[in-house]
Amino acid sequence: MKCRRCKEPAQVALPSHNTAFCPDCFFLFYLRQIERAVKDHAMLVPEDRVLVALSGGKDSLALMVALAELGYDVTGLHISLGIPGSSDEARRIVTEFCAQRGFALEIVDTPALGLAIPEVKARLRRPICAVCGKIKRHYFNLAAIEGGYSVLATGHNLDDETARLFANTIRWDPDYLAGQGPSLPAAGGFPRKVKPLYRLGEYENACFAFLKGLTYATTPCPYSQGASFTGHKALLETLELRSPGAKIAFYDGFLARGRPAFEARCAAASRPLVPCARCGAPTNESPCGVCRIRALLAETPDAV
Amino acid sequence: MKCRRCKEPAQVALPSHNTAFCPDCFFLFYLRQIERAVKDHAMLVPEDRVLVALSGGKDSLALMVALAELGYDVTGLHISLGIPGSSDEARRIVTEFCAQRGFALEIVDTPALGLAIPEVKARLRRPICAVCGKIKRHYFNLAAIEGGYSVLATGHNLDDETARLFANTIRWDPDYLAGQGPSLPAAGGFPRKVKPLYRLGEYENACFAFLKGLTYATTPCPYSQGASFTGHKALLETLELRSPGAKIAFYDGFLARGRPAFEARCAAASRPLVPCARCGAPTNESPCGVCRIRALLAETPDAV
Repeated sequence: MKCRRCKEPAQVALPSHNTAFCPDCFFLFYLRQIERAVKDHAMLVPEDRVLVALSGGKDSLALMVALAELGYDVTGLHISLGIPGSSDEARRIVTEFCAQRGFALEIVDTPALGLAIPEVKARLRRPICAVCGKIKRHYFNLAAIEGGYSVLATGHNLDDETARLFANTIRWDPDYLAGQGPSLPAAGGFPRKVKPLYRLGEYENACFAFLKGLTYATTPCPYSQGASFTGHKALLETLELRSPGAKIAFYDGFLARGRPAFEARCAAASRPLVPCARCGAPTNESPCGVCRIRALLAETPDAV
Repeated sequence: MKCRRCKEPAQVALPSHNTAFCPDCFFLFYLRQIERAVKDHAMLVPEDRVLVALSGGKDSLALMVALAELGYDVTGLHISLGIPGSSDEARRIVTEFCAQRGFALEIVDTPALGLAIPEVKARLRRPICAVCGKIKRHYFNLAAIEGGYSVLATGHNLDDETARLFANTIRWDPDYLAGQGPSLPAAGGFPRKVKPLYRLGEYENACFAFLKGLTYATTPCPYSQGASFTGHKALLETLELRSPGAKIAFYDGFLARGRPAFEARCAAASRPLVPCARCGAPTNESPCGVCRIRALLAETPDAV
């Protein structure tokens, strides 16, 4: 198989795009998919100071490298969650990655803020993945606001986005269907939020990370078993194998023709953001989610 | 395993409903699912003269038996398409079924009307399943109008409906998403159209047909290979196995929260029905689809 662009031997086959590339041409392809996402959804302008959420996994590290190569002013943000095994590895990898490549890095340490995830999990009778996500988003916002960043970029990829969309669709959840997308404008104190990798799947990101020689975290979160749309991802993979390009067609079709139908109905119902009465962070409902988690933790016998 | 209702030994397990029944209690369950569909979607009233489209397959014969048991005034309608192998078997089975059970039956013979499907297929460069569907719907409407029936009932089941919905959803086709549903009101000369089996899957219908001792057609249409959402049905079956009840939840959720979003946007765009200038049948665009098929056939060298 030859590279579609330069006719050298191909190393990356991309059936979804009915093509194959050598490493250098694959890098070009990869960056162009990001540029297309950025352009189609007004994600970034050259003047932006971009805060990039770095979990330490392949997607977020690939995103950081790609945005830097495209000339954006990027700073890393790592939320260290205190989860045994995975958090230490992730923090070390992100720290070394940024040090080696000269990227600025901010670290938020949730255990130091009274929110070590294992303790939260032990004390709260709630699905921990939802609580952990709430905590991460809270500190994403806070770090962006306090550091004066205009935009927060996350490494969500096409598989993440289509699995989430599929879950929202089979439930026909109008609020989520009105809100899901690769770019969320700044509003009420929240920075703009963008997902520049939304056109690129797990596989493309793994290829980019591998071919760029990135060392990335691979220890799964011990709490994530069976979580996070694993079944939906397998199902969408079946669809993609039968009909290459099905995932991006599903997602792009949603953005073009699905979301507008739900936006029109939900616009009236959306609540304006207000400052949290306790911590000041913008929220739909005061106190904000994290202050409510803190209040619940404080009510337990062994309060932090 | 015991029957949930009468505690006799169960013969039909229904994991989607987390239950199992003996034959008699399964018949009750089956009829109640139909009654619920009829009630929730205003499908039928006792005064209706119901024309039931009978293909000869398990679903349509089961529907006929069930509607008769529920006390509706039913007449069968069979469209004989002239397809070698499957059409002769279907016509014989439907004829014997109606004769044995004392059901009135109307037969439309498309070859006698110049529309034998094999000839249409040979001469028209179009997907034959779409053309055949158009011809069948045309004569469903015509037979209902000419016979003074108030409603046309078809045997579409939950698997048919969810596979079609899934196809429309992954394409995010707003017109189809605004229009799909188990009950279409009478409009502009078209009879009301209803799908009383939409809550019951292939499996439930096969059980009903088997336990009622129905002889039904099993020869597949020779043109249907790989067609008709086979892949989507397998995919939805995977979802159902992982999460029993997922199919009906997907469909009911669509009717409650999905379709309204698309209806609101598409209402303005829908065109009123007009009589076909050639045959008089109600149509969105004159001449109607079948008259256009006839015109295309007349243009070919070997016109019928």
